Amino acid sequence: MSGNTFGKLFCVTSFGESHGPAIGCVVDGCPPGLELSEADIQPDLDRRKPGTSKYVTQRKEEDKVRILSGVFEGRTTGTPIALLIENTDQRSYDYAKISQVFRPNHADYAYIQKYGIRDHRGGGRSSARETAVRVAAGAIAKKLLREKFGIRVRGYLSQMGDIEIAFKSWDEIDRNAFFAPDASRVPELEALIDTLRSEGDSIGARIEVVATNVPPGLGEPVFDRLDADLAHALMGINAVKGVEIGDGMKVAAMRGTEHRDEMTPDGFLSNHSGGVAGGISTGQDIVCAIAIKPTSSITTPGKSIDSEGKAVDMRTTGRHDPCVGVRATPIAEAMVALVLVDHWLRNRAQCGDVVPETPRITG
Amino acid sequence: MSGNTFGKLFCVTSFGESHGPAIGCVVDGCPPGLELSEADIQPDLDRRKPGTSKYVTQRKEEDKVRILSGVFEGRTTGTPIALLIENTDQRSYDYAKISQVFRPNHADYAYIQKYGIRDHRGGGRSSARETAVRVAAGAIAKKLLREKFGIRVRGYLSQMGDIEIAFKSWDEIDRNAFFAPDASRVPELEALIDTLRSEGDSIGARIEVVATNVPPGLGEPVFDRLDADLAHALMGINAVKGVEIGDGMKVAAMRGTEHRDEMTPDGFLSNHSGGVAGGISTGQDIVCAIAIKPTSSITTPGKSIDSEGKAVDMRTTGRHDPCVGVRATPIAEAMVALVLVDHWLRNRAQCGDVVPETPRITG
Amino acid sequence: MSGNTFGKLFCVTSFGESHGPAIGCVVDGCPPGLELSEADIQPDLDRRKPGTSKYVTQRKEEDKVRILSGVFEGRTTGTPIALLIENTDQRSYDYAKISQVFRPNHADYAYIQKYGIRDHRGGGRSSARETAVRVAAGAIAKKLLREKFGIRVRGYLSQMGDIEIAFKSWDEIDRNAFFAPDASRVPELEALIDTLRSEGDSIGARIEVVATNVPPGLGEPVFDRLDADLAHALMGINAVKGVEIGDGMKVAAMRGTEHRDEMTPDGFLSNHSGGVAGGISTGQDIVCAIAIKPTSSITTPGKSIDSEGKAVDMRTTGRHDPCVGVRATPIAEAMVALVLVDHWLRNRAQCGDVVPETPRITG
Amino acid sequence: MSGNTFGKLFCVTSFGESHGPAIGCVVDGCPPGLELSEADIQPDLDRRKPGTSKYVTQRKEEDKVRILSGVFEGRTTGTPIALLIENTDQRSYDYAKISQVFRPNHADYAYIQKYGIRDHRGGGRSSARETAVRVAAGAIAKKLLREKFGIRVRGYLSQMGDIEIAFKSWDEIDRNAFFAPDASRVPELEALIDTLRSEGDSIGARIEVVATNVPPGLGEPVFDRLDADLAHALMGINAVKGVEIGDGMKVAAMRGTEHRDEMTPDGFLSNHSGGVAGGISTGQDIVCAIAIKPTSSITTPGKSIDSEGKAVDMRTTGRHDPCVGVRATPIAEAMVALVLVDHWLRNRAQCGDVVPETPRITG
Repeated sequence: MSGNTFGKLFCVTSFGESHGPAIGCVVDGCPPGLELSEADIQPDLDRRKPGTSKYVTQRKEEDKVRILSGVFEGRTTGTPIALLIENTDQRSYDYAKISQVFRPNHADYAYIQKYGIRDHRGGGRSSARETAVRVAAGAIAKKLLREKFGIRVRGYLSQMGDIEIAFKSWDEIDRNAFFAPDASRVPELEALIDTLRSEGDSIGARIEVVATNVPPGLGEPVFDRLDADLAHALMGINAVKGVEIGDGMKVAAMRGTEHRDEMTPDGFLSNHSGGVAGGISTGQDIVCAIAIKPTSSITTPGKSIDSEGKAVDMRTTGRHDPCVGVRATPIAEAMVALVLVDHWLRNRAQCGDVVPETPRITG
Repeated sequence: MSGNTFGKLFCVTSFGESHGPAIGCVVDGCPPGLELSEADIQPDLDRRKPGTSKYVTQRKEEDKVRILSGVFEGRTTGTPIALLIENTDQRSYDYAKISQVFRPNHADYAYIQKYGIRDHRGGGRSSARETAVRVAAGAIAKKLLREKFGIRVRGYLSQMGDIEIAFKSWDEIDRNAFFAPDASRVPELEALIDTLRSEGDSIGARIEVVATNVPPGLGEPVFDRLDADLAHALMGINAVKGVEIGDGMKVAAMRGTEHRDEMTPDGFLSNHSGGVAGGISTGQDIVCAIAIKPTSSITTPGKSIDSEGKAVDMRTTGRHDPCVGVRATPIAEAMVALVLVDHWLRNRAQCGDVVPETPRITG
Repeated sequence: MSGNTFGKLFCVTSFGESHGPAIGCVVDGCPPGLELSEADIQPDLDRRKPGTSKYVTQRKEEDKVRILSGVFEGRTTGTPIALLIENTDQRSYDYAKISQVFRPNHADYAYIQKYGIRDHRGGGRSSARETAVRVAAGAIAKKLLREKFGIRVRGYLSQMGDIEIAFKSWDEIDRNAFFAPDASRVPELEALIDTLRSEGDSIGARIEVVATNVPPGLGEPVFDRLDADLAHALMGINAVKGVEIGDGMKVAAMRGTEHRDEMTPDGFLSNHSGGVAGGISTGQDIVCAIAIKPTSSITTPGKSIDSEGKAVDMRTTGRHDPCVGVRATPIAEAMVALVLVDHWLRNRAQCGDVVPETPRITG
Repeated sequence: MSGNTFGKLFCVTSFGESHGPAIGCVVDGCPPGLELSEADIQPDLDRRKPGTSKYVTQRKEEDKVRILSGVFEGRTTGTPIALLIENTDQRSYDYAKISQVFRPNHADYAYIQKYGIRDHRGGGRSSARETAVRVAAGAIAKKLLREKFGIRVRGYLSQMGDIEIAFKSWDEIDRNAFFAPDASRVPELEALIDTLRSEGDSIGARIEVVATNVPPGLGEPVFDRLDADLAHALMGINAVKGVEIGDGMKVAAMRGTEHRDEMTPDGFLSNHSGGVAGGISTGQDIVCAIAIKPTSSITTPGKSIDSEGKAVDMRTTGRHDPCVGVRATPIAEAMVALVLVDHWLRNRAQCGDVVPETPRITG
């Protein structure tokens, strides 16, 4: 109820602050019999972790995950899988001086108003560090989707500031630290980061996530639509301010003749709807996108208040990403994967033995 | 779990098909002691109902709501409030001919793949008619917010196709059938609808919703962030393909110096974040927007398949809105209200007696 | 959260007061494709309804159920099934005089302390009338269990006051108004009721419920054990004060050599555990029992207080059952059925494709 | 959904197997501002832990708890509190030989039928070791109840086999390893344990739990009654086969004149109902009891089957309690405390500002 559990059948309960002893989660509801070890999870954590290039924060967190339960002799047992990541690089002295002031556009002020108390070290629970946990849980979801259900979830950076990057191929994405789908554009991105660093500024970004080979029938028809649950999952990522499915916000200006996805015996003729109709997957690719705001922690001073309500001028130091969107691709993939696994299981519960008479068309 | 219940503390369980005997819901978790009668709910239903102008569908549903329980001597008792709306204008013969074919961009095909069976009369459960129920439940939420918590939730149409409508005043909205915040623009909207009707086409729209006087502290820090739950609520409305909080998708191109909302002892200097930081309300106005796709049911024929998978050419007749966005404003308001009530109660449960030492600044 | 929804995958949301316009529920999560009509539900309601013999209350409620949604052309569609029972015999004038006093051992005083308001007509929400709704929902669960999963749930009256009734056969139960498994004992029960009526007193009872052909594997290992969920379901029935699984409270005095159920290739040698081990069904019969307190509404005057806290002498008139246990058998069956359906679906979600290598032994 | 989370507002998610690296839980929903350290939790763990006297199992688990999150500068922050207990004494070789056979009356067979796989080391997830986690979470609940809400929860052993122990005083309980409320009876209990050990047998027990100073109004009127949730919590403890509230199973033989709790301006005249009426607390003491079956692991050989379904004769060795009931008192207290905290918060959410006009009478 305090909102630290995600999912209804494949449930992830997250815990931990950026500067406490550890962060982690409990994954409850993973089917038994899946081969699983830390080696299945670590690669996704490594994709997200800070310090991998000079274009992201230079904090050095190892993000080493340990499985504490739920796996026996290399396979899941159907019982809760606890994942633990110990915090190692926690220079909380960096944060001591901000304990009595509120960083603009951070959760600091909202936290103190809500709880009357906050762990000011690195944002505590509101730190982007918490997303490591989601990536870890998502790695299990992704493996389950891939190996048991045949579904693949992948994302990429499609925009940073004014730089829009057209999709070239999935192979490009692993060849650069930006998750850009066209590696030839990377020098532009690097130049932008360099400029921002020198100007004490930051920039927003846009990420696309695509899930392929999703069967039709996932999602519930009214409140817990597949797209609604994707929106919940994606808007719940730190710094996300917009979520789109298929054509997204552009549909406001579109006509019905242009937007509708016609069907033929050989499949759909387009995918404007992003693979979801009436809240239920159609069998086409699930396509969604998020916009991530520019990092709020910048070195250009800004106006704020302190804990007594007095005006202060605030300049955030510390080691921050000029573009938090750069490391967000694995997080967005993880959240989409968690939604899909959850709905796959929900669908199996209610409609597990349905054999539709209407033939399935390809996506 | 089948997704027909919304909310965790203020729970709405919806039921009913467009062409069955009735639609309705159970509202569980409303605090006791609220004055309530059908007269508090009917006006919002009347705002949404079809047939009110020539610019919306000419179906004539009375949408007369009846309270079946949970109210005694004019006040809520704390027990479930059941709301019932009987269906009156159910020309299901209109739909008989489409029972064996799938309307493009509708849920028809996805339903049959999921359930192996579907109520083809008017879309059954996927019909926009179901949203009447949300409006009814939302009217209770809005009253509770207004009278007990001092919060007001209002929406308006900000775009239809290429026509963007700048906000003029809340008073304008009730003066036209489009919920447009500038009544002087209505002739343009009417002309567009007329054109679409003659062309057998439809158009998308954009709706903004604003909640004022929201206290800081609503929302949970990780998965069930206030913005994440708003996204879930809004993306769960039929035909919505994008959700934005504050600056929304535009943040992808913004800089930190531009986007961050600075604070002073006299309040925030801007509201780019839409009233939510780190998933928790800041005390500023909550500002969100949705994009609604063009109506899929249009009279221009389109390619589709029938229940045996064979190609058909499909021309949707029946009485449909050329722009479903026109009647969506009350629905969006209702969903935002339901989220806010739910989080208000969740916050009272966990932090009910917190008295923050930091003074509250104005929004 | 306000506790009017039962189940996690097969969810029943109950509403209605005894003297309002109607009671009813929404059943969400029923798999599609089940043949269903009112005729499947009414018989169980008729078994529970008052006025069927002179040994129960003489209120005359028709308890006529109507299906409002979720069924199309005689089969469930996978969407919410709303059930409505209108109240017909609501002599609320009977209750006007008790509006300012609290009946001893009733929920009256607790309600006013909790909600600050109560619907005093017939107990409002705390009325046993609400259990009609559970019986109606349970009838759907029972049909699903029987026809799709091969499971049968049946109950009987095993004790009323000092009269203990040994199980003779299931056929006997339908031959008498007491659900006694040995019709030859009925004259004793009738005599006891007559005595209680003349003495202005009431009596407790014990009900057993047995589920046969339950597969092994239902139930979750820690909190939501099958037996824990049965206890929740059964203790949640009005007037129940004790719940037992298998040997129940007697195990406190038993030895391990006596209690343990040994296994052979031909099956279990005993069923002291009532079909549940470690919270999970073993494949044996599920056996549980409840004790129901004597009716609190009796004509012998008792001490109480009024709404100002002053002492009053209270004599409950109205039409009450001398033994509420008499009509409780269908309710207990319904609750057990709801638990089993829910866990069957939960198990299908998580372990749906498990094929255990160990052969299954018979119960 | 897989049932490893307890509570709706004060949520405990448990993980870990008896012979894995660690067990633990995440407590989500604890209000902010509670002073908390490991020193508040350890004493209850020490009360439950094995090896404290010769009358319980001689396994030596330190049960040292560590708080990983949710506490900052000695106070809870309102964020998830993760608790970790590392396993130290895990002689799993003791269990290797039972990997291919099923212990009678254990969950072994049910697990393999459900999951197709099981962690056979010490019962894995079904081990009583998991209850340490509940005791740890319960210690937080107990502290919150005591310090913030003024409620106290205590339990005692009232019966072991044929030995019934009348309540003498709460002070006695801490003076003996049996949690007996009359220390003069301890020699009898010791003698019984000695006899059982020599005979290779075990014995059942009965535990009472009493909560004092509970305000009226906790509990929801229909499914999630306070007593129903207590039954769920208590029946969910390993080896529990019966749960009673107030007079419990005895009510089946009682009369209304005898059972009803009359009220006067000075309070209730009796507490047969155990402090709950209509599912809601009345302000009297909450009184409940459980029966715990005799330990299934005994040295007297018993019939069973192996993983191929063949007959085996089974003699459980290892270090087991002759009476698992001896160490169950802290577990039962913990579960009752968790239910009360949860309902206290639920009540605050929905009825937080209710001021009943009727004066409160003492319990």
